[in-house]
Amino acid sequence: MVITQISKNHRQWIRGLQRRKNRDQEGVFVAEGFNALESALRSIHHPVLEVIADRNHIEAVADIIFNETPLYECSDSIMNELSTESTPQGVLTICRRSEFDSRNLGAGTSDVLLYLDRVSDPGNLGTIIRTSAWFGVRQLMLGPSCVDPFNAKSIRASAGALFAVELYMPVSPESMKGLAGRAGYQIIAMVPRGGISPEQVEKSGKNIIMMGQEAEGLSDELIGFADQVVSIRGRGDVESLNLSVASAIILYEMLK
Amino acid sequence: MVITQISKNHRQWIRGLQRRKNRDQEGVFVAEGFNALESALRSIHHPVLEVIADRNHIEAVADIIFNETPLYECSDSIMNELSTESTPQGVLTICRRSEFDSRNLGAGTSDVLLYLDRVSDPGNLGTIIRTSAWFGVRQLMLGPSCVDPFNAKSIRASAGALFAVELYMPVSPESMKGLAGRAGYQIIAMVPRGGISPEQVEKSGKNIIMMGQEAEGLSDELIGFADQVVSIRGRGDVESLNLSVASAIILYEMLK
Repeated sequence: MVITQISKNHRQWIRGLQRRKNRDQEGVFVAEGFNALESALRSIHHPVLEVIADRNHIEAVADIIFNETPLYECSDSIMNELSTESTPQGVLTICRRSEFDSRNLGAGTSDVLLYLDRVSDPGNLGTIIRTSAWFGVRQLMLGPSCVDPFNAKSIRASAGALFAVELYMPVSPESMKGLAGRAGYQIIAMVPRGGISPEQVEKSGKNIIMMGQEAEGLSDELIGFADQVVSIRGRGDVESLNLSVASAIILYEMLK
Repeated sequence: MVITQISKNHRQWIRGLQRRKNRDQEGVFVAEGFNALESALRSIHHPVLEVIADRNHIEAVADIIFNETPLYECSDSIMNELSTESTPQGVLTICRRSEFDSRNLGAGTSDVLLYLDRVSDPGNLGTIIRTSAWFGVRQLMLGPSCVDPFNAKSIRASAGALFAVELYMPVSPESMKGLAGRAGYQIIAMVPRGGISPEQVEKSGKNIIMMGQEAEGLSDELIGFADQVVSIRGRGDVESLNLSVASAIILYEMLK
């Protein structure tokens, strides 16, 4: 295995990938830590382009990656510069993003799909991806104004699950509705209050569950598309549930 | 209403409250933003000692607080210094922490209680508090090595719910077991895999649900105390669920 010292231009390119614009343009993203590296190596999505490790971790990385994967070494201080974490884990995995075309959705996809409308917190998005993968929901649709799932915080919150799901993005509300009609999905809108309980939803068919923005919820247009409107009943006087928590409860109920 | 300009020493005291040691010593904490201020004003726990606002928000704050609450004004740059957020919301509420004695737990407490063992992520802790309050679980026990719920990140994730619950801390494993015996609670241990499903748990009685540390789960001692061991079944190949997500699913199932 050949280990190369990382060059200055190379470092600038990696740092540039912290910006969504550059990630989108190049179709490349950075996943931090050993958990992400191992998930990337096991996955058929998002092939590993190269790996960067600091001196303390280079041997451990060399032991687990494929022989042909380019491996770059850097100092601790350069790792600090390249990492988005306050205490870097010592390894960065650079991956090529697999693109999924929503026109292919429908045949052979899960009986439960998620559609996310303007989710703005990357931690929530990553946690929703993690929960979906746990429950075997492999396809997620992201509306046009969602935060980037390839953001470092989202990848971290996904705990490796980013590599286990197919992310269709951006999927417009109309395309989602078209898919539902074409492939026989019922559309469920999750709203903070006023809907039926998750237990009351008919679970035998195919369902698309729509989750909305943290503060504002689903757009009126999307709620207008819904066959069922569902809320998780509370007993306290707090305002709402966290979005990733509400997503987890409806997924649990639909898939148990 | 008297509005005072904040002094240098006063600022130093507020900044000092970002450290747990100082918060614990003084029994005082800082909650950021309007949502927290409004929750604090509505609450019977954690009385408001004083409020600090920057120039753009001082009028809005003066409109909602009680006449006798001390109100301090500061510049934007001082607010930036005092706030832990990258984009401060312009208002800080300083509260006296109410202490709850776990020897009083048992009579008149909820049929479902949470016991948290070494939870280390403040965002998770705050989200668990928010979910508990949503489902009407008003008492939470925190084991000796939990992160501080009065940490700024935890308060933010609780979305105001910190003011709606009673936090008993620290509660040793033995005290929790003693309470269960005394007050007739069944003890449930949540583990990543191998337990019975949440639906299979007998829900008519009184239950203490124990949740463990993000990476390591519950201690062996605590698992040894359990009457029932419960896991949320997955269908995917990801490692685990996020802790606040797992807590939400078991609370939903126990309380629906």
